[in-house]
Amino acid sequence: MALTPSPLAYVPFVSVENMMKLVHRVGVETFLKELADRIEDDFRRWPLFDKTPRVAAHSADGVIELMPTSDGETYGFKYVNGHPKNMKDGLQTVTAFGLLASVETGYPVLLSEMTVLTALRTAAMSAMAARHLAHENARVMAMIGNGAQAEFQALGMKAVCGIDTVRLWDIDRRATDKVVRNLEGSGLKVVACDSAEEAMEGAQIVTTCTADKQFATILTDNMVGAGVHLNAVGGDCPGKTELHRDILARSTIFVEYPEQTRIEGEIQQMDPDHPVTELWQVITGDAPGRTGPDQLTLFDSVGFAVEDFSALTYVRDKLEGTDLFDKLDLLADPDDPRDLFGMLQRAAP
Amino acid sequence: MALTPSPLAYVPFVSVENMMKLVHRVGVETFLKELADRIEDDFRRWPLFDKTPRVAAHSADGVIELMPTSDGETYGFKYVNGHPKNMKDGLQTVTAFGLLASVETGYPVLLSEMTVLTALRTAAMSAMAARHLAHENARVMAMIGNGAQAEFQALGMKAVCGIDTVRLWDIDRRATDKVVRNLEGSGLKVVACDSAEEAMEGAQIVTTCTADKQFATILTDNMVGAGVHLNAVGGDCPGKTELHRDILARSTIFVEYPEQTRIEGEIQQMDPDHPVTELWQVITGDAPGRTGPDQLTLFDSVGFAVEDFSALTYVRDKLEGTDLFDKLDLLADPDDPRDLFGMLQRAAP
Repeated sequence: MALTPSPLAYVPFVSVENMMKLVHRVGVETFLKELADRIEDDFRRWPLFDKTPRVAAHSADGVIELMPTSDGETYGFKYVNGHPKNMKDGLQTVTAFGLLASVETGYPVLLSEMTVLTALRTAAMSAMAARHLAHENARVMAMIGNGAQAEFQALGMKAVCGIDTVRLWDIDRRATDKVVRNLEGSGLKVVACDSAEEAMEGAQIVTTCTADKQFATILTDNMVGAGVHLNAVGGDCPGKTELHRDILARSTIFVEYPEQTRIEGEIQQMDPDHPVTELWQVITGDAPGRTGPDQLTLFDSVGFAVEDFSALTYVRDKLEGTDLFDKLDLLADPDDPRDLFGMLQRAAP
Repeated sequence: MALTPSPLAYVPFVSVENMMKLVHRVGVETFLKELADRIEDDFRRWPLFDKTPRVAAHSADGVIELMPTSDGETYGFKYVNGHPKNMKDGLQTVTAFGLLASVETGYPVLLSEMTVLTALRTAAMSAMAARHLAHENARVMAMIGNGAQAEFQALGMKAVCGIDTVRLWDIDRRATDKVVRNLEGSGLKVVACDSAEEAMEGAQIVTTCTADKQFATILTDNMVGAGVHLNAVGGDCPGKTELHRDILARSTIFVEYPEQTRIEGEIQQMDPDHPVTELWQVITGDAPGRTGPDQLTLFDSVGFAVEDFSALTYVRDKLEGTDLFDKLDLLADPDDPRDLFGMLQRAAP
């Protein structure tokens, strides 16, 4: 009796297994599309969110971050690490989990794996930005860097922007082969290329998602043609960039949260007052997006807490009526809130 | 097959039920004593810890906080809320959970309930401070405020400092009656009193742990005799204090982390440069503790991340060889770290 917690004390928990089941039940592309819409909805009410820079604990091997935000009703945070050297030990570079809580009571209402979910939200975010910034008739994407994020990016751009072709390049051919294999039967035309230049031929959207390099220059200025939309995903922490600064100088740059992007994004290479447009203002119509066919647009993506919030609330809503969660006995819930000790005593064997 | 996560992906999880079992297996007093020793060990290496002020999300109804720290090997954080109005809805004012992770890989290694554990660590912290600051022969404690923390404080002071008597007072007699009932058979002489003054008669340690009051004055200057050790637990956020400032003016004040205590503790009533001693320096011998029998010592306790870290690592060590945890499928762990999408695909029904 004393050992049976009340329903109040239970927190729904989405394991990796249940997250994958949920994604398949919804369908990967539908999931990406609906999540892109959810993120867009939240970006539309951007000023309402409590925006805190992430809280980072740096070490020689990597970083552990807490990313909290709140819309006044629901509080959310993500735990995420970044340890580039993990990969050679057979571990994930990035693992993550997240939590939602009621602002009114402070009680957690959802705990979820977020390694799979972050991959989905990052692709949904890229696709949502491209929907506003790329050519409307963009059908070909170059995917530079064919790691863990590549397939998600390709399917997100297909579901949200209607691309039909993805052209792949990676310094490691095995990574490219993996993507080719995984995208078989996806409906996308998939082309493995021998260089970044080749991959970019005819592409209206160019996504860069490489990792582990200090101030790498994956793309140089002469490689990027007029009218392209650049989706720079890989540069996301101090010292980690992918694009030559000449590209930045001639791009119209869109960001999530300037305070964070100036530290972590491609624009860390530029002056601290280099002009950028906040993407949420494009969505609300307060700032222009693409203004002409030859304009080079750049989404300097670093990932922001609001996107994780959107992903967690989306999952919370999708869970309703399913059994795709466990009930976690995470919260003590004594009959009399002042009698925590009595609860402990009654649990004595 | 694809749905069976590897051992790497599992995070040990301590539920409320298992935490209570662990406490009973160890014994409440032994748990408090060993935890006090663990906190003392960590305070002895205080400069080594990464100390960040807690990250708070305030709302009209309460606050949700993240409290991270790290000793360079292990990273820990606690999620904790404070919602005073919860109690009238039958909810806990404070709920909490915590996590430990490896600094080297960023992988979580323990997730634990911390509502019960925080009650224990707060009492262990108070007792550890009193061991250094109270009269060596202190045997009587006054307990002002008989809420959820009261029994833990009494047993902690018994286990660590050897008190044999606790004198209780609360504005709500039912709270006092609850503590009397819960401490039956504890070996402590328990005296229910009709006023704070009466409770303090003959007490060498005075613990205040009241809640929910804006700048309350639970104790006034004339009530506190020479030589007493004051353990002020209840004042722990901006606008929440328990002691009259005249008491503070004649006390030698000890704190956990001055940057935080000046905002949240009793000393928020004093000048920002009012002299305080950091408790860790008393433990290392770098600062004096009690210097005479008539000195009024005050531990202005607010709770700091390092104490939660100590509590979580203590629990982690105690779990070894037990079955008092569940294995949580919190982390995605694809065979090939770059092939997260392949893992998702193979999980398709």
